[in-house]
Amino acid sequence: MTSKGERTRNQVIALTADLMNEQGWLGVPISQVMAVSGLQKGGLYRHFESREALAYAAFDHAVARVRDRLIDSLTGCETATEQLLALIHAYQPEDGPVPLPGGCPIMNVAIESDHAHPGLRERAVDAMSRWRSLIEQIVLDGMRRSELRKDIDPANVSAVLIGGLEGGVMLSHLYDDPEPLQAAIRHLHHYVEHDLRRHAPEDGTP
Amino acid sequence: MTSKGERTRNQVIALTADLMNEQGWLGVPISQVMAVSGLQKGGLYRHFESREALAYAAFDHAVARVRDRLIDSLTGCETATEQLLALIHAYQPEDGPVPLPGGCPIMNVAIESDHAHPGLRERAVDAMSRWRSLIEQIVLDGMRRSELRKDIDPANVSAVLIGGLEGGVMLSHLYDDPEPLQAAIRHLHHYVEHDLRRHAPEDGTP
Repeated sequence: MTSKGERTRNQVIALTADLMNEQGWLGVPISQVMAVSGLQKGGLYRHFESREALAYAAFDHAVARVRDRLIDSLTGCETATEQLLALIHAYQPEDGPVPLPGGCPIMNVAIESDHAHPGLRERAVDAMSRWRSLIEQIVLDGMRRSELRKDIDPANVSAVLIGGLEGGVMLSHLYDDPEPLQAAIRHLHHYVEHDLRRHAPEDGTP
Repeated sequence: MTSKGERTRNQVIALTADLMNEQGWLGVPISQVMAVSGLQKGGLYRHFESREALAYAAFDHAVARVRDRLIDSLTGCETATEQLLALIHAYQPEDGPVPLPGGCPIMNVAIESDHAHPGLRERAVDAMSRWRSLIEQIVLDGMRRSELRKDIDPANVSAVLIGGLEGGVMLSHLYDDPEPLQAAIRHLHHYVEHDLRRHAPEDGTP
């Protein structure tokens, strides 16, 4: 059971996440949040103690929405290779566009906030580090089970996969064209299959 | 020979490029440009007809600075492989950091401006397309000379290389750590050497 106040709060957070992710985590004025949410300033500040508190809640919500989609993609995957491929393809599923207008909220904050907003930046670093850790854990498990090669560095793999995908998102966003991200996905799929997955040697030794 | 007026104009453009690339192409107010350049509003508007005209000149300057560094890296390269590797490594040369504070100006505008500023966005698309064309021309030449494999798609290669590098720049920028970009560079070096370069078949046929 959620109260009417909680429902309103959650609606404002979701609207603000869409708005700020598309138009800027720093730049969107509170007047625009008021216009989109239909709340007056007093109403907004009953739910959030400051613009900053609202931006933090909206950023956490945006990250959670992306993360949920990525985690959902792992359902039914058994091997490390399957898991990595599912996460890669979840960046551009066939059933629809990204779950958030404006692309990846972590990249948007990373690029936009520089040193202007240490609080948002810190949240972006935390969210990226959790995303990298998830991939590194999958890689480590795959190495332990001898599915993946023993000579790979999990931190390296997470940088290559996430960097490649985020760069593809940026290019597709710039051109308003799915192709650059699809090229990144095809390339990283090949990387997982050919450079990370352990292939049995041809002489048959295990 | 440049006149004093031209020198002042060029200095303001260079200062504004650094400032806007680090703090936002849309967000930096003209008052901050005045503070950094030491010019009054009247002085600024004698050189630039609007904030927009100044931002365009600064963006073109920022892109030219990055492009000059990339083009310089091609000096002395003969094969397509050498040229592609030189461009990849030019993203993080050993002799110093990127030529511009705040990272890649094209990515910054791509992420920051969305639909808020179609003029800057159009300039970012043009700059990115020139950068992609340079890589695609090198790849085509390499394919014609049988240095590179015949079955590769130049547009695919430019998306993978630029997306991978830009994603690495973003991660290194977020963490303030050169390692993610270095991981991208090592990965793309391997991609050029192993997936693009044509290796003579082992049976000795040409």
